[in-house]
Amino acid sequence: MNGQGVTTDTADPDETSSRVRALLDISAQLFAERGYEATSMRDISAAAGVSKALLYHHFASKDDIYARIAFNSTKHLYGFVEERIPTDGPSAEKIRAFMIATASFFSQHRAAWIAASNAFWVDRNRHRMGNRMARRQQFEHRLRDLIREGIEAGEFRDIDPADAGRLILSSINWMHRWFDPAKEHTAEEIAARYADLILNGMKQS
Amino acid sequence: MNGQGVTTDTADPDETSSRVRALLDISAQLFAERGYEATSMRDISAAAGVSKALLYHHFASKDDIYARIAFNSTKHLYGFVEERIPTDGPSAEKIRAFMIATASFFSQHRAAWIAASNAFWVDRNRHRMGNRMARRQQFEHRLRDLIREGIEAGEFRDIDPADAGRLILSSINWMHRWFDPAKEHTAEEIAARYADLILNGMKQS
Repeated sequence: MNGQGVTTDTADPDETSSRVRALLDISAQLFAERGYEATSMRDISAAAGVSKALLYHHFASKDDIYARIAFNSTKHLYGFVEERIPTDGPSAEKIRAFMIATASFFSQHRAAWIAASNAFWVDRNRHRMGNRMARRQQFEHRLRDLIREGIEAGEFRDIDPADAGRLILSSINWMHRWFDPAKEHTAEEIAARYADLILNGMKQS
Repeated sequence: MNGQGVTTDTADPDETSSRVRALLDISAQLFAERGYEATSMRDISAAAGVSKALLYHHFASKDDIYARIAFNSTKHLYGFVEERIPTDGPSAEKIRAFMIATASFFSQHRAAWIAASNAFWVDRNRHRMGNRMARRQQFEHRLRDLIREGIEAGEFRDIDPADAGRLILSSINWMHRWFDPAKEHTAEEIAARYADLILNGMKQS
């Protein structure tokens, strides 16, 4: 499914110039604040201080901008989280670190996170869409492996790794709908509280 | 905030005629399938077999349709869930019933659920928006009360009812993004599995 040697794929967002990145950031901000629907290409060009013609030079449509934000929003997630998982110690600590790092990443890229988590969209660029799906799967499977490791070590009860993994990701994914950085708790603190609740339910009694 | 005696409020969706209800159902279906953005008033009128003029007679805009779907989607949730919570017995059983009933309600109103859970929107009808928010709060507070009851009875550990309530609702709310009724498990089964995981983490050991 995933092609190799895609370096000549000019649509690959890895190739984005700083101008394109700046336009994507501004768009993400507008989408997050007003919603996708209420944001026009005119709004984006005005906020970015560029002409509509230039905007259309870089992006085929508003949909294209949206798809690229959604794509980019998770691009560095895996590496960011992986770096923060301790190599040794109990599985519970690894999962806890996984959760806190995921929440931390999302809160650092909050506009893109909100924009990408809302509205339906299908990326017309199949290669990019395929990559994004593969990345999500890889991420979810990494979490399931950590859960499985804990079950095999006798640290957790004999739970279903897919269920537990979904529960963990749901708790963090849904945060984009209510989390407010201006409030008392950081995203990391909330993830840690969820980790306590969930991991306590997983552990062997 | 919530007015009384709203029976003369013609915008109140309680007053919806069967034609309006049918138009809302068709719209919810289209929004869920294609997304809000990709669905036009023309698409809705075509799918419903009515003229655009008639559609605009009933709704001010696509946004208005959307807001009414979102409003209606949770209107009967509270009553539906409340009826299914056992009056006696352990708090864990009540919370379990709460979760299963919520998932059941959502899966029965799947198109509206998906439509209402996606995209940003602000209902311009403040009275309706206020009502919807009040309902959500009432629902969440009911769940927190059940959790608190279990803590006071010594059934649960000394956890934070707000955290645990959010975790429970997040697990179910996020289902709209991945749950597929054509797959092996029903929404109720998934909610029951989440209940097992979460409640086990809450209980006094």
